[in-house]
Amino acid sequence: MAELTERGRRTRQRIVEATGRQILAAGIGGTSLDDVRAATLTSKSQLFHYFPGGKAELVRAVAEWEGGELLAAQLPHLEDLSTRASWEAWRAALVDYYIGQGRWACPIGSLANEAAVGDPELAALVADTFRQWASRLAAGVRRMQGVGEVDAAADPDRVAASILSAIQGGLVLSQPLHDPWPLEAALDQALHALDAPAVRT
Amino acid sequence: MAELTERGRRTRQRIVEATGRQILAAGIGGTSLDDVRAATLTSKSQLFHYFPGGKAELVRAVAEWEGGELLAAQLPHLEDLSTRASWEAWRAALVDYYIGQGRWACPIGSLANEAAVGDPELAALVADTFRQWASRLAAGVRRMQGVGEVDAAADPDRVAASILSAIQGGLVLSQPLHDPWPLEAALDQALHALDAPAVRT
Repeated sequence: MAELTERGRRTRQRIVEATGRQILAAGIGGTSLDDVRAATLTSKSQLFHYFPGGKAELVRAVAEWEGGELLAAQLPHLEDLSTRASWEAWRAALVDYYIGQGRWACPIGSLANEAAVGDPELAALVADTFRQWASRLAAGVRRMQGVGEVDAAADPDRVAASILSAIQGGLVLSQPLHDPWPLEAALDQALHALDAPAVRT
Repeated sequence: MAELTERGRRTRQRIVEATGRQILAAGIGGTSLDDVRAATLTSKSQLFHYFPGGKAELVRAVAEWEGGELLAAQLPHLEDLSTRASWEAWRAALVDYYIGQGRWACPIGSLANEAAVGDPELAALVADTFRQWASRLAAGVRRMQGVGEVDAAADPDRVAASILSAIQGGLVLSQPLHDPWPLEAALDQALHALDAPAVRT
């Protein structure tokens, strides 16, 4: 794959994006190479030229690309998160990515289930995106702790995991309702961890 | 379907359970009627005798059965939740159902994505299980408020949604790691809403 022409790169990318859309709509199991060929008007030999490993390699390419897009959609806020305003801007960008742009599902989270049982290499890619994402959120929590905005006793990694879980789980609840309120309620609740140090009994 | 014999009920149930296992492992899209027939040693005509509507009807039967099992696994605690001890017992039963029993995924949550895009009737069944589940959690929050254990200002429905989201999202993060810590961290964080009334600034 080192020697793709510009045209080759575009074709490969077109295949990756079309497969990503199909997976979001029908799952990995519901996505066939025939569907992908039909959606991209490519031949079987073209598909295997770009993805010699077949469907498994293509799905991993989708996971890498979608993971990058998902993190990029949260920039520049995801790299800051040093103020409550930055968290709010990050939150708004994320809700727009999922709901405003009509995804109603996480392209990475929706791979987790099938990846975990079927493809350890894909599961590792999914876990890596979650790890990169959580490490930015945890860094933001530490910045907030550094300026006394967040309780110093909070564990940034656990706060980050609970925020990510609120996003993923909120989407699971929002999907069948086609209503963003569970996602927003879960995010609000998880972001309470950032409130000014609370006096707890 | 009103006139099944005892033997017919058992065969139908065997088909539902085998399909549920297949869906949890490979998604709806990755589950074919041929797989189900092979796993249950049933003929095509038997399958259509019990499920004249084919795969869609079978998947809905799975959603109804798995929804009932999921709620039953949380009894009797789910109908109580009037004390912190009852919440802890509920939490332990739930973690055992998902992790102890080796599921590592929610049989209902894992249907949400594909249901939302492919089958409105299935999406309604998934949403109904979430609604029944959330209403019990919200009732528990109200009981805790009634005895002054939870801040009266908390919205029980939003607290319930955030706890359910923590469960669903925690599972999404735990799956590819095959490690329960994100699920437990998310649940802990969401259950903080039940702590004795906090003085917030």
